[in-house]
This record gives sequence, C-alpha cells and structure tokens, in this order.
Amino acid sequence: MSKEIVSRAADYSQWYNDLVIKGGLADYSAVRGCMVIKPYGFSLWEHMRDQLDRMFKETGHQNAYFPIFIPKSFLSREADHVEGFAKECAVVTHYRLKTDPAGGGLIVDPDARLEEELIVRPTSETIIWNTYKTWIQSYRDLPVLINQWANVVRWEMRTRLFLRTSEFLWQEGHTAHATSKEAMEETLRMLEIYAGFVEEFMAIPVIRGVKTPSERFAGAVETYCIETLMQDGKALQAGTSHFLGQNFAKAFDVKFLTRENALEYVWATSWGVSTRLVGALVMAHGDDDGLVIPPRIAPIQVVIVPVYRGEDQKTPIDQEVGQIILKLKAAGIRVKYDDSDHNRPGWKFAEYEMKGVPVRLTLGSRDLSSRVVEVVRRDTREKMSWPLEGLAAALEQLLGQIQENLFSKARTFLTDHITPADDMETLTAILDGKGGFVSAHWDGNPQTEEKIKELTKATIRCIPLEAGGGEGKCVLTGRPSARRVLFARAY
Amino acid sequence: MSKEIVSRAADYSQWYNDLVIKGGLADYSAVRGCMVIKPYGFSLWEHMRDQLDRMFKETGHQNAYFPIFIPKSFLSREADHVEGFAKECAVVTHYRLKTDPAGGGLIVDPDARLEEELIVRPTSETIIWNTYKTWIQSYRDLPVLINQWANVVRWEMRTRLFLRTSEFLWQEGHTAHATSKEAMEETLRMLEIYAGFVEEFMAIPVIRGVKTPSERFAGAVETYCIETLMQDGKALQAGTSHFLGQNFAKAFDVKFLTRENALEYVWATSWGVSTRLVGALVMAHGDDDGLVIPPRIAPIQVVIVPVYRGEDQKTPIDQEVGQIILKLKAAGIRVKYDDSDHNRPGWKFAEYEMKGVPVRLTLGSRDLSSRVVEVVRRDTREKMSWPLEGLAAALEQLLGQIQENLFSKARTFLTDHITPADDMETLTAILDGKGGFVSAHWDGNPQTEEKIKELTKATIRCIPLEAGGGEGKCVLTGRPSARRVLFARAY
Repeated sequence: MSKEIVSRAADYSQWYNDLVIKGGLADYSAVRGCMVIKPYGFSLWEHMRDQLDRMFKETGHQNAYFPIFIPKSFLSREADHVEGFAKECAVVTHYRLKTDPAGGGLIVDPDARLEEELIVRPTSETIIWNTYKTWIQSYRDLPVLINQWANVVRWEMRTRLFLRTSEFLWQEGHTAHATSKEAMEETLRMLEIYAGFVEEFMAIPVIRGVKTPSERFAGAVETYCIETLMQDGKALQAGTSHFLGQNFAKAFDVKFLTRENALEYVWATSWGVSTRLVGALVMAHGDDDGLVIPPRIAPIQVVIVPVYRGEDQKTPIDQEVGQIILKLKAAGIRVKYDDSDHNRPGWKFAEYEMKGVPVRLTLGSRDLSSRVVEVVRRDTREKMSWPLEGLAAALEQLLGQIQENLFSKARTFLTDHITPADDMETLTAILDGKGGFVSAHWDGNPQTEEKIKELTKATIRCIPLEAGGGEGKCVLTGRPSARRVLFARAY
Repeated sequence: MSKEIVSRAADYSQWYNDLVIKGGLADYSAVRGCMVIKPYGFSLWEHMRDQLDRMFKETGHQNAYFPIFIPKSFLSREADHVEGFAKECAVVTHYRLKTDPAGGGLIVDPDARLEEELIVRPTSETIIWNTYKTWIQSYRDLPVLINQWANVVRWEMRTRLFLRTSEFLWQEGHTAHATSKEAMEETLRMLEIYAGFVEEFMAIPVIRGVKTPSERFAGAVETYCIETLMQDGKALQAGTSHFLGQNFAKAFDVKFLTRENALEYVWATSWGVSTRLVGALVMAHGDDDGLVIPPRIAPIQVVIVPVYRGEDQKTPIDQEVGQIILKLKAAGIRVKYDDSDHNRPGWKFAEYEMKGVPVRLTLGSRDLSSRVVEVVRRDTREKMSWPLEGLAAALEQLLGQIQENLFSKARTFLTDHITPADDMETLTAILDGKGGFVSAHWDGNPQTEEKIKELTKATIRCIPLEAGGGEGKCVLTGRPSARRVLFARAY
C-alpha cells in the first residue's frame, strides 16, 4: 500500500486530488481555476481524443477551427444561450498594456479599449452559426458535419482538477441539417458514439437519457446525455448531445433553399465531451493505491522493471528486454522499460501502481535463467510467473481481460446502485446511504424537481431512454407520472 | 485556366487571398483579425501537425497543456519579453456580463473586475517557467522536454489569412537543461527537425540561420530560424528555435541541484512553428489555377472523377472505382471518389485543381472497356493514359515524383534568388528587380541594419549557418565585415 494517498474511505475528495496530482495527470496552476495538464495526463487525453476523432471521422465528420473570441453581441442573439453563459465568462476589454507613466508598473492602456468586448468562448454555437450563414444557401450544402477540438473558458467559482476548471479542453460538434428528423438522428448517433467510447474504451458503463427542461443546454430543444456513476455513489455527466431545433438558425438567420425551392431555417445539433472524462476515469476505476487505467486508452500498457545487482546482471536483462519490447511493439502493445538507476525496484512498483499501468513485468537474473517473467495485473493484483516464450500473445489476451474485468466490475457497481424509491423517505435514505441513482416517479413539473433538489441535493440526472417501468405516482406530490426518472447527487 | 482567381502577375496579394478562400482553406471571421480554418485547410494542418508531432516524440518530447491565461505580472518578469509582447495582447479584465439596468442590453459587470488582469497567451514561456519551478529541483529532473499544441493571440493591426492573424494555432516547445551545451544542442536539434519537415514534407527548401540581435525573440539569447522564399521574391520566416540561456530561469527563480551538489539556474530553449506554414505552402507552390499541395501532406492525394451518362454507365464505373479505392488505400494512398451528381466533370476538374490535389484520375465507360484510366498530374498538368493493372504501385511512384519535382523546382527558384551585392545601389536594384535574398556584407552594427531597412524596406533575414564567403566591407558603411548575411523584404 502506498503511504502517500489518502484512502477513499477516509476522504474521497482528497483521494481524488491525490490520484490526479501524484499520478502525474495534472497540477494546479498560477491562474485561478486553470490547471496544468502534465505529460502523463495529456498522453491519456491524447489516446482518448484520437479514438474519438477516429469515430467522428468514420461517421463523416470533419474538423475545423473557429475563433476563440465571441463578440459580446453574439451571445445575446439566442435568449436562453446568453442566460446560460453570460454569468461566467472571461471578458476581453483591451488589446494593449503599457508602462504606467505614474510608475505603477505595467497597466492596461486605457486608449486601447475595444469598441465591442470579446468573450473567450464558453462554447461556440454563436460564432459557428454566424459562419454557417455564409456557407449554407441550398439543400446541396447540407448536411454540414463539423467538429472542433478546442479550449473553452467558463468562469467557475468552485473548481476541481479535470471535473470543473475555468479553462478546459473539449471537442464540440456543430452540425446543420435540412430536416428535423435528420438532426434528431444525428443527435442520437453522436450520443451512441459517446456511449460506445465511454463503455468500450474507458470501461465505464453509461445510462443514456434525456435531460429535463431545467437541466437542458442553454439554447437546446432537447439535451441527451450519458450519465455515469462514481465510486462514492455520485453521478457524473460524461457527455451531452443537443438537438438545437432551429433556435440558432433563427438567431443567426441561416436559411436554405429546399429541393422544392422553399426557404427554410436550418436544423442543428451540437455535442461535446471534455477533459472532464479524465476525472471520470480516475473516480470510476482508481483504488487506494492509485490510478487504474483501462488498457485500451492507457499511455503505457505494460511496464518492465528489471531487478539486478550490478552491470553484470543488468546487461543480459537489457538484452532480453530489448527482444521483448520488439515483440510487444510488433503486437501493438505500448510498452515502457524503466531501467533508470535513480530508483529501486520497490519504488518503481509503487510508482507504476500509482500511475495505473495495467500490467507490470519484473525480470530478474533468476527469471532469465528459467526463461520466465513475473507478470502483475494492476486491477486484481494477481501475480503470475509466465514463460518468456509466447509472451506477447499472452499479454495481448491479458490486456483484453483487464479491460473486460474493469468494465464488468463497474457495471455490477452501477447495476447495484440503481434503486427504486416510491416515497421521499426512501429516496432520501438511499441518497444518504448507499448512494447512486434512485429510480422514482416524477410528475413532470419543474417546481417539483426544484423542491426535491432543495430537500435532497439530488437532481434528475436524466429520463432514461430505455423503458421507464410503467405509470405510477410522483415521489413528492403523488400526482400521476408516466414513468420513472433517475435522481442522484452529482458532480 | 480558372476564371475565379486573379493571376500572380496581376495582383500577387489578391491571388494569395483567392487561393486561401476559394481553395477552401480558410475564411475571414466576424472577429477582427481572427480567421476560420475550414475543413480542407484544417485537414492540411492536421497532416502537418501529426507529422511534426511524430518527429517531436521520436526525439523524446512529450506533450502537455498549460493555461491560456498569463497573469499580467508574469509578463513583466523578463524585461525584454514584456517589451516584445505587452503592446499587442488581449487583456481579460472581467469575468461576468450582466443585463444593463439602464436598458442598454448586455454589459460588462463592473462588480466582476479581476484583481489582476489576465493576458491571453501570446507565447507561454512565463506561465511554463513558473510551473517548472515546482517540477525541477535536481539534475535528476532534467532535461524536461515538453511541447504544447495551442492557440495563441497577438493583437495584430494588419492581418492576413494564415500569415498574420490575431489568433493562430501553433506548437511551442519548452525545454529545460542542466547545461548551456545541452540547451544549445536542443536548440539546433529542433531547428534541424523544422528544416527537415519543411523540406521533406512541405517541399520548400530552407536557409538555416541565426537572427541578428534586433530580430531576436523577446527574451532569447540567440534565435535560430529557417527562412524560405516565396514566388514574389519575398522571404518568409517558417520556424524559430530559441536558445534562452538562463533568462527565464532567473526571471522565475528556477534552480537545480547539480551532481556536484551546487545550486544553479536551469538552461532553456523554446521553439515553434504555426499555421503560418500553411500560408508559406500556398505561396511557395500555388499557381494561377489554384493551390498545389505536396503529396506527403495532401489531405487528398488522388481524386477520382467518373465520366458517364446515366446510371447504366455509372454502375460499372462505381464498381471498378470501388476496387481501385481498396487497392490505393491498401497502399496507404489518401483517395477521394467524387461521384456527386450536383456538378459536371469539368467543374470538378477545376475544383480539384483549385484545391491542389496532386493527382486526378478520370474514368469513363470507354476507359473501362480498354482497362485504362486517365491520370493528370497537378504540378506539370501532364495527362497520361495508364493501365488499371498495377495502378496503385504506379501512383505511389508518381506521388513520390511530384513531391520531388515540387521541391526541386522550389530549390532552383531559391538558388536563383540568392544574389550577392557589394554596394547599396546593387542591393536596392536586386530588391526592386528580381527580389529574393541579397547576400551582402554587414558591419554588425544594429544602426547600420536599421538604416538599410529604412532605405530599402529589407531586413537581415539571418546570418546563414553555412560559410559566409569570407571577409569584406559593409555594403552601407564600408566598415570591415567578417562575413556576408542575407537581406530580403519579408512577410
């Protein structure tokens, strides 16, 4: 057991921070609310990003890049949108600094005030739809299927590494369609891509659902989401896909000529996931010894640690490892050989456990003469002695097993933490006790939703897309309800 | 000849804009000085970025991400640095908007003023070295070899798509070393990587050199650069690699414990290339019919256009093209089949010429029955009829030839445009005539450099790393000079 990490039981929140910082994922920065993503964390993000990018491209999307600045007036064009973002944005008012003539150092040059203030993008619907106006004239120009990888800024008052930072990295898809039906299909297609990615690559099971009106994206007609569950029983929204209807087309006057020669407003979607997913990964799989990273997105899938005394022992190990690495790389396995002499093997074992590397190989002189290697799984801690012969194929299989095991463990946890409740007492008891999602009837009234939130700190995470379990009575008001929804306390 | 593009001879500057906009690379945006990078342009940038990223990683660098905001006080820490960047930066002063109680719409909330203004990063030395302070304690922590792909903002008054925009995309490497020698080696290693990339992938020959003190990066001890030549005879700086000495280590107090247990300041480098390279590509290879993109970085290397009347003719062509695409993809060729029925073949020919696709294949019914295909090179316009048999291998070879031909043409142009001058009259006549680089003696005095700039609008692009042609007399002052340097008018 590593001594540097607080246990989940002792202080879940501190445990999370310990994993992020001591696992080498990120660090606080000198700028309030902004983080530094360290090389190991960024490499993890790169693996996630590259996989998502492949999935977007396979479904016909192209990347593009739009300005980081949004003219203030653009925000106001869509009434709900401005409501959602105006209160937490970084505002650029000047374009020059100068030396204070009064000797006060560097000051903002009052002569360099912008005529119109610029907002550092919190999301890009407005600037993008203003651009689409010039790109879209006819049904022939549709659909437009564009994605952007970018940084965005939302001025958060209470921040947490990865989960809620003032600046974060994300992708935002912005598509334009000729019909409502096509736009809705796209909305659900992207939801499905997110669900597939999070389940198959991040090994985190998701619940697909739709948000209640009060939890919708500012400017959307419907917001679809994937919700995940963390080990402390709190929910985390992992991705959203919005059906925007014609809201932004109307706000920016984007019309197109249909096949029938009529002029109509364009239909839109937008969808995004962010570096927040890294936080979800930490909290879904980590344990009291550190990170546990699913093999399919792990920057290092296999680490090799040599055990030796003196160069005489090390040379033959180096040679054998050279061969192993060639074979592992040929099998597409991401492998690292840590033969640094600054640190002892025991220190390295703890270090790579902390970093969540799925498999560790240890090779010593005795192993070498028996042609075996010690293999340790990060997920189960199982320690095995395997023949060097056929190692690459065996490791490929093991990595697959670890991936499956992580998902299956997380799925069991999720299934065990969806609990029905038919009255407020039960609902509250579950939230205060085992946590997780509570499946309960709701009368569809936003005030009921608000009241339950006040009473329990839980929100409706989503109305699941799968069957809602039939009719019943609202958990708070007793009024009729068509189906159950999922409540939870959330990140 | 495409009618939509102004010719280079008629208006070089307009020709450039036509290529960028009509070639589908980028567009102006609603935000002054910022551009929208369109899907085709972004795909080109992705191919450039991915190749550079591989080269960085192969030389031991890792990516990371640092905040977009720089506290105002950080800029002031390094005297030259603040001098270089304070006059052209976007300043965030507030973090909230609100509805004007006086009915003036959305206004900056005066109660949400930041205690310290934040600068949108023009470059990240300051925020990164402030972070390195916490990462580096001992020689064991060195070297730190980090790169960041990011957007940066420099408030430019006169902007041009790709060449000079207020926001641009780039990479910035920031490395930390134990010795001056190592840092200098890194500086030159990265210069060599840039040179290799620009020559081998972008097919643009470069001159490697070092900047004069007046052209150095703000905060550098030495700035190395690669200079390229555009078709109008103006030079373009394509990349820079800076030896920063201990300047930023001193400004942010970053010391390390040496092997000998002494405390010393860390040595630094930084290096970057940007989306400006896309502009260089356009101007180096484009012609009066549009873009000409070197195969190794072309988003589409081969486009296939079918020629048919009616579905009866189209179906067998589609089937054949399906087979061709499989073979080309297996050979690693990026291929697009444009069978859209909105546009005629002639329109498509012009379109892909405009987009600079290296090779076009045209397949009609008659070709199909003779088992041949029409092959047209974008660079030479050569039109050939090739057998379908063995097409993939032949195209692979052709793409290699096109890559070589573009480079060789550009190299001849460069060689022909480095002209010696031994007096001001000749120097001026060359600049006003054929243009390009003028190789002339300079006495090493910044005032001489400034005076020549006033007289000719040419700057010293660099002191080439290769031999300087022996001693001589300064072209302006007649004072002794150790070697020749390169003058040019530049972008």
